[in-house]
Amino acid sequence: MNIINNWIYTAIAAGVVSIAAALSLYFWVMKQEPGTERAQEVASWIKAGANAYLVKLYRSLGILALVIGLIIAIIFSIQPETAGAGIVTLYFRKGITMSLCFIFGAFSSAIAGYLGMRVAVEANVRTATAANFSLSKAFKLSFNAGAVLGLAMVGMAIIGMSAILLWTGTPEAVLGFSFGASILALLAKAGGGIYTKTADIAADLVGKIEVGIPEDDPRNPAVVADNVGDNVGDVAGMGADIFDSYVASAVAVMVLGASIGFTQAEQLKYTVVPLVLCMLGIVASLIGISLVRVKEGQKPGPALNRGTIITTIIFAIFLFVFVRFWDVNPGVFWAGLTGLIAGVVIGITSDYFTNDQFKPVQETARVSSSGSAINIITGYSYGLISIVPSVIGIAAATLISFYASEHFGLSGVYGIGISAVGMLSISGMIVSADAYGPIVDNARGIAEMAGMDHEVIVRADELDAAGNTAKAITKGFSIGAAALTVIALFAAYAEVIADSGVMIAISLKEPLVVAGVFLGAMTPPLFSALLMLAVTENAFGMIEETRRQFREEPGILAGTHTPDYARLVSLASEGALTSLATPAFLAVGLPLLVGFVLGPNALGGFLGGAIFVGVIFALLMSNAGGLWDNAKKYIETGKFGGPGSDAHKAAVVGDTVGDPFKDTAGPSINTLITVMSLVSSLFAPLIAAFHLFG
Amino acid sequence: MNIINNWIYTAIAAGVVSIAAALSLYFWVMKQEPGTERAQEVASWIKAGANAYLVKLYRSLGILALVIGLIIAIIFSIQPETAGAGIVTLYFRKGITMSLCFIFGAFSSAIAGYLGMRVAVEANVRTATAANFSLSKAFKLSFNAGAVLGLAMVGMAIIGMSAILLWTGTPEAVLGFSFGASILALLAKAGGGIYTKTADIAADLVGKIEVGIPEDDPRNPAVVADNVGDNVGDVAGMGADIFDSYVASAVAVMVLGASIGFTQAEQLKYTVVPLVLCMLGIVASLIGISLVRVKEGQKPGPALNRGTIITTIIFAIFLFVFVRFWDVNPGVFWAGLTGLIAGVVIGITSDYFTNDQFKPVQETARVSSSGSAINIITGYSYGLISIVPSVIGIAAATLISFYASEHFGLSGVYGIGISAVGMLSISGMIVSADAYGPIVDNARGIAEMAGMDHEVIVRADELDAAGNTAKAITKGFSIGAAALTVIALFAAYAEVIADSGVMIAISLKEPLVVAGVFLGAMTPPLFSALLMLAVTENAFGMIEETRRQFREEPGILAGTHTPDYARLVSLASEGALTSLATPAFLAVGLPLLVGFVLGPNALGGFLGGAIFVGVIFALLMSNAGGLWDNAKKYIETGKFGGPGSDAHKAAVVGDTVGDPFKDTAGPSINTLITVMSLVSSLFAPLIAAFHLFG
Repeated sequence: MNIINNWIYTAIAAGVVSIAAALSLYFWVMKQEPGTERAQEVASWIKAGANAYLVKLYRSLGILALVIGLIIAIIFSIQPETAGAGIVTLYFRKGITMSLCFIFGAFSSAIAGYLGMRVAVEANVRTATAANFSLSKAFKLSFNAGAVLGLAMVGMAIIGMSAILLWTGTPEAVLGFSFGASILALLAKAGGGIYTKTADIAADLVGKIEVGIPEDDPRNPAVVADNVGDNVGDVAGMGADIFDSYVASAVAVMVLGASIGFTQAEQLKYTVVPLVLCMLGIVASLIGISLVRVKEGQKPGPALNRGTIITTIIFAIFLFVFVRFWDVNPGVFWAGLTGLIAGVVIGITSDYFTNDQFKPVQETARVSSSGSAINIITGYSYGLISIVPSVIGIAAATLISFYASEHFGLSGVYGIGISAVGMLSISGMIVSADAYGPIVDNARGIAEMAGMDHEVIVRADELDAAGNTAKAITKGFSIGAAALTVIALFAAYAEVIADSGVMIAISLKEPLVVAGVFLGAMTPPLFSALLMLAVTENAFGMIEETRRQFREEPGILAGTHTPDYARLVSLASEGALTSLATPAFLAVGLPLLVGFVLGPNALGGFLGGAIFVGVIFALLMSNAGGLWDNAKKYIETGKFGGPGSDAHKAAVVGDTVGDPFKDTAGPSINTLITVMSLVSSLFAPLIAAFHLFG
Repeated sequence: MNIINNWIYTAIAAGVVSIAAALSLYFWVMKQEPGTERAQEVASWIKAGANAYLVKLYRSLGILALVIGLIIAIIFSIQPETAGAGIVTLYFRKGITMSLCFIFGAFSSAIAGYLGMRVAVEANVRTATAANFSLSKAFKLSFNAGAVLGLAMVGMAIIGMSAILLWTGTPEAVLGFSFGASILALLAKAGGGIYTKTADIAADLVGKIEVGIPEDDPRNPAVVADNVGDNVGDVAGMGADIFDSYVASAVAVMVLGASIGFTQAEQLKYTVVPLVLCMLGIVASLIGISLVRVKEGQKPGPALNRGTIITTIIFAIFLFVFVRFWDVNPGVFWAGLTGLIAGVVIGITSDYFTNDQFKPVQETARVSSSGSAINIITGYSYGLISIVPSVIGIAAATLISFYASEHFGLSGVYGIGISAVGMLSISGMIVSADAYGPIVDNARGIAEMAGMDHEVIVRADELDAAGNTAKAITKGFSIGAAALTVIALFAAYAEVIADSGVMIAISLKEPLVVAGVFLGAMTPPLFSALLMLAVTENAFGMIEETRRQFREEPGILAGTHTPDYARLVSLASEGALTSLATPAFLAVGLPLLVGFVLGPNALGGFLGGAIFVGVIFALLMSNAGGLWDNAKKYIETGKFGGPGSDAHKAAVVGDTVGDPFKDTAGPSINTLITVMSLVSSLFAPLIAAFHLFG
């Protein structure tokens, strides 16, 4: 027991170190040159807009968290005595504990996201200013700012999980923490995704097409909302997204560790193993992050990839040493290694489909000269094909981690969970490289809006290109990790049901399971559609308002009158938040409905259907979107007629279609299936006790 | 036994009557006025093109059928003695029987498709000519021609199944017949789908956009290929598609009837029940078809729907009487009725998403004024939502038919199969109404090409609109039926494996099953992508050739020189056929690979994954495609700026994207999952005996 507690304390210590490193980087960023008055003015609009959105978002989420927290407090005070017998006792202490864990999870995720946003909006303008001097300086600034989010996130997560495990001694409470984090992630990601694309479409449609002013022109009333969108969607949303997978994978393994065929002493150890892996990953990430630098004249892309590879190798060595010297089953090493390798392989294959050096992007660009329809059919088709290598990677990782673990006498399902944790343990580094992308993207926008030199824009473009490659790899990583995580959560769900004394048989030969799978399978498409329709619907309101401002105040276009940016920020925020009601119900309500009505087996099928179809759609939408974006950029480099050609016009249509695919619907699906899996595991004992059929 | 044989003979008799009716309608059509010399000349080009394609298609298929037939003859001569022991005996008689059944199935399906095509190309020109006189006359002609395909198809199918059952006495041999029919359907449907859209894109792109001549202008070298495409894709392909579901659903029930918990005497009876249902459906269809007519001044749409509804009601009554008086378990009635109702409900909800009287089409048309990207995002989103009601309908039909059957002491899985048979038994009527659509569509093309009066075009348009509504309902019907069929086939697969003495556990808790599901889930998207990419790639070759002809022979555009239509027909044919290799391997080879390597449980998971994702993609692609098509047509009626407006241009892009969705990929997915399910059931005993893992 002592050594176990020591591990937990060490994990907390690693979390504290991680947060301290994040804070010191934050203050370092804040100390950098904030730039000219004009640049600061532009940045202040974005900062104000981002704050306005976050205040609205967190207020809504705060209320929602309290409501759900209250429901959890009540429901988890009900203890079913014997499954199916309908006899209950009340046990308020448990209800209140679960409720607090839930709220703590939501709060931790919010804090990490808020910190990331906060540093991002400060770093944007400073990066633009640094790019006046040199590429290496601008790179260092933006990467360090990204690392604030990465390190804060993993730090908050490991402290939260460890503290709850110490306090309550039960992984079930950590499940509550994870659920809180996931609910927040879902709304932050989906809300941010709607926000960012709504603003993007409105700014482009009225500004570029109707009025004919360039992108990021400060005369465009929607331009601030657009820039705020990049921060809320890409930085805060993505941070919350990986926070959620990170915690969910660890908690799935904890639940499995506490229940699958271990002795009492082993149970404790294997419950804590995922925390140790997270801790090792944090140390590896700190080393990797500190080694990322670009000398003048070097390309920034390889530096980011080098950081990821070094972190991966260091983590693998740590893992080996840990397993070897602390008498942990070697299956943990092999499963963890499988996850790591699968993550990298999935990342690289995703890159093939979205990188302009390979056939899919080039071919999509080439056919664009025959019109936008052919561009869309071709890009969509390659998006469909891009599912294949990732799915094979996920299937292989599942099988290898399972059988490698079984080979060493470790539960195979536990091994699958470990492979997800292995993949995600280096999230500190991954998120740092990913958050760098939107920061340089926004720096470019600010440079444009503040009328900086052309050289600055060129440097910002070079930084941005590196960000895009990093992003493609991260995206594959996060989808792969989410898939393995939900498979582990699925196993955890089955364990919790079995522990409740109900025979679980999620067999595809059972009609209730088949019906459940069908219902689950339709959920990711429906969810995606609701988010995308929210984008187009809300965009119409913003378009109207942007047109109105141009029409009623001629000074705006003349450049003598500052537009009412705040009004459009507010429209985008409100639109995004009110559109979340139905998707949120789908995520939380539908699994409960299926579980309480059709029973635990049908709910198992439901989760299966949602997971399989969810992974497929997440890959399709993310990759197709990235592919269209890069096909357009490839043409903009002068290929197939270059900017302004028919091919370019067609590619712009593809890119616009791809925007809500890759930035709104695609990345939210991961979180959707995580939330559905968590809510099912959390309510599993109650569902096992009370259900209408099955 | 005697009464059983009597039922089989009666089924054969119904088949003979059906074919006789088809032939008499065929000769009636041939006797109608073939029109002016010019119209006949135009029709002769299309006829020659269609024949050229069919000769190529059937030659390739003939060779393929012989090769697969030979493989089947060899493989099915191997009899595993005991599962897993690896001891085999050779039993050539069985191999040859199976091989003959397979070839017979492919041949029957080909004959039905050929007859349908043959009457369609003759009916096109005659319908155009009849439209010179009156709408009712043209309607009668085209509907009767459609009925030739419908009646020939169900006749061939029931005779084939009954004869094989009589000859061999085993449903397994009927499985071979069904597999032959499905392989042919897959290639006819996918090949026709590629052909038709390749030709369509080439004709539109060069003719309408580059050269600026109207649709269906005889100066366009690709115009004949385009018109041929409508026949091969819509008539022959669709006929083969429903033939395949029709036979597959019946054979699934036969396999289940022969193996699921019946006494010996009952087994015989319940093996023959699906044939009786098909027979009753044929009689009901004959009555329904004979009642479809339009008086002058009436709309043709309601007449078609009336025919379907009357057929449905008559069939339900027949079913009730049959079950009541021949001592069949009442579960058969309720399950069959469930299938019928589900089919109608799914058809009607599909209609909601593709009919211009409802929100999805109208809203997609409305937003088109903001550009093609918004049109595509909106249409795609509604396509995603359109999955929901159909999937709920399928899930409900599965549950209700299962539990209704169990309630009466009938095997629930058998009930699911009966619901699919119930849905499909009225295929004679459904196919007749569906085949009517492309005939009037082509009649319109011929009228245009032959320079007939404007009035004829208007009448043809009115006939066409009715065809589109019928088509939407049929499409929902066929996807719903295919889903229930593959669920039944899935159950049949599990039964055959269990009969081979191997414990089958398709549980989502098993990693091999999960890996199988992932692999199966990626197959329909990959398959769709290959078909769609084949369309765009082949279209490029045709575009080049069309441009070349215009360039090298100025007389073509001047109208003094007939273009080389045959060259483009041949390009389209060869392109379509050579593109089929990989998709065909996916359908047949991948399930066998998964089965022999990962074992029967993984193959069960594979089928499950393919079925669930396949249904989702089939619904999405068919409905989104139909929606875009009708949004464009809605604008063409003068809404939102009418033809030539920005909204119209945007909607044309959506329509072009939707074309390969709804006519190439979407409808082929049904057949893909049927083929995969059949090949798995057929090889199940061998897979049970020999597999590497699992």
